[in-house]
Amino acid sequence: MSIRPVIISTWPFGLAANEAAAAALASGGNCLDAVEKGINVAEDDPEVTSVGFGGLPNAQGIVEVDAAVMYGPTHGAGSVAGVRGLKNPISLARKVMQHSRHVMLVGEGAREFALRHGFPFTEMLTEPARAKWIQWLLKTYPLPPGKTHDTIGMVALDASGDLAVGCSTSGYAWKEPGRVGDSPLIGSGLYVDNEVGGAAATGLGESILKYCLSFLVVEGMRQGLSPQTACEAALRRMKSREAEYPDAWAGLVALNKAGEYGAACCGHSDFPYALHRGGKNEVLTYSPRPE
Amino acid sequence: MSIRPVIISTWPFGLAANEAAAAALASGGNCLDAVEKGINVAEDDPEVTSVGFGGLPNAQGIVEVDAAVMYGPTHGAGSVAGVRGLKNPISLARKVMQHSRHVMLVGEGAREFALRHGFPFTEMLTEPARAKWIQWLLKTYPLPPGKTHDTIGMVALDASGDLAVGCSTSGYAWKEPGRVGDSPLIGSGLYVDNEVGGAAATGLGESILKYCLSFLVVEGMRQGLSPQTACEAALRRMKSREAEYPDAWAGLVALNKAGEYGAACCGHSDFPYALHRGGKNEVLTYSPRPE
Repeated sequence: MSIRPVIISTWPFGLAANEAAAAALASGGNCLDAVEKGINVAEDDPEVTSVGFGGLPNAQGIVEVDAAVMYGPTHGAGSVAGVRGLKNPISLARKVMQHSRHVMLVGEGAREFALRHGFPFTEMLTEPARAKWIQWLLKTYPLPPGKTHDTIGMVALDASGDLAVGCSTSGYAWKEPGRVGDSPLIGSGLYVDNEVGGAAATGLGESILKYCLSFLVVEGMRQGLSPQTACEAALRRMKSREAEYPDAWAGLVALNKAGEYGAACCGHSDFPYALHRGGKNEVLTYSPRPE
Repeated sequence: MSIRPVIISTWPFGLAANEAAAAALASGGNCLDAVEKGINVAEDDPEVTSVGFGGLPNAQGIVEVDAAVMYGPTHGAGSVAGVRGLKNPISLARKVMQHSRHVMLVGEGAREFALRHGFPFTEMLTEPARAKWIQWLLKTYPLPPGKTHDTIGMVALDASGDLAVGCSTSGYAWKEPGRVGDSPLIGSGLYVDNEVGGAAATGLGESILKYCLSFLVVEGMRQGLSPQTACEAALRRMKSREAEYPDAWAGLVALNKAGEYGAACCGHSDFPYALHRGGKNEVLTYSPRPE
């Protein structure tokens, strides 16, 4: 049985990531290869200021990255958080999943693991990011709300009908050193169950992780909800509780085993995401219904 | 309305922790104070080799601790992971929850936050723990399975009917530096919903976190399951998937809003836990039914 692959990613920068993911599938890779190669594109792009190289730094001017990956067929997971000097944390997360007896490594320990496995280290703070950090220090760079933590999250269904999901981020701009949001947390920033579907999140990690949003979406799909309805239901729960936090917002993308997709957001004006399906790769936008 | 407080903790060392938690409630503290003060007892006890001071170190001989706390009334959460030289990570997790704009801090960043907030630092490696580490290095200390990662997890219901939950651990003995298990992960090692109930986990973090076990227990209770049935249902899911991992085991404790409790384990011969209820504090044991 051959399934038509589907790839869904957060944000317009997901378009280029989807393209690379589809190329990985076309050249014989599976859904895990697709997620890694796709997310690498956003990590490498200095124009994407919330993921990997060129990401906005923490309050001390240091870029710390987080990422995680989960692979349906083995239900395996790998995660890294608070890693400095590393361009491709999604690849390190995959390495942890496949070559460590652990699932999650943070900080210096994650860096030591990366060094042992030959990952290159580099200065991650680009000149434009440094200039913005200086402006922030001088209190002349007020970031617009919702523009400080745009994680790339991707769910991919391959021709074997297997699912993988990944997330990568440089986190909340000007965060306290060591801050970790939802992105590297299995169940919060991402989740997959190969029998059901997968989901990934973007938004204010501090809110998302208190509701295990990606896990909640997959549980919704397990109970028979469509990916779209499951995303909306998960966000309703968060929204009803986080009303007092004006910054609390989240966007979700999801894919089920049949290749049906969903995307939704709350606390945000609209949520553009990238969908690759049937040979077509495009940016679609979810707009919350007025209440 | 005055509710009868109930406190449930993992393992026999939960008995002394429950005692301190009950004392905190008796002297006017709420469920959050109970969880913090209770868990502090296990952290301070050098005989408890899997939590706080006296915990077995990582592969490099360094004790790295993880902890998290979640408070029902505000749905607030605080978490720290991979912190060195710190005796009471549960108190640091509470400080993060109450005095940081973030939920989770790891590694050096968590340590810097602790320093700024006046937490004392100390050598965490006791002589007995160091001796065991040396034996392990010399390959003469084969730890019995299941004895390397006995997290303290506690759920407390106070007289106002509010719930809090906490977890603290020194993690998997001889772990790779920076390894993080389920304990500091909201939804995996612990979860609370003040309208429903709370749950905490112990066991192999690498397995637990791939099923968001504590969140899954709370979701089960939300759907009407008793705490006992919810624990067993969550473990069934993990067990069905982790059969190929001989080390995969988990123990769960749970409490609902009405003060009913539950505890269960899988992949382990039995699971002793401590229950404080109606003025009585005792160790009970869950034994899995033969299949």
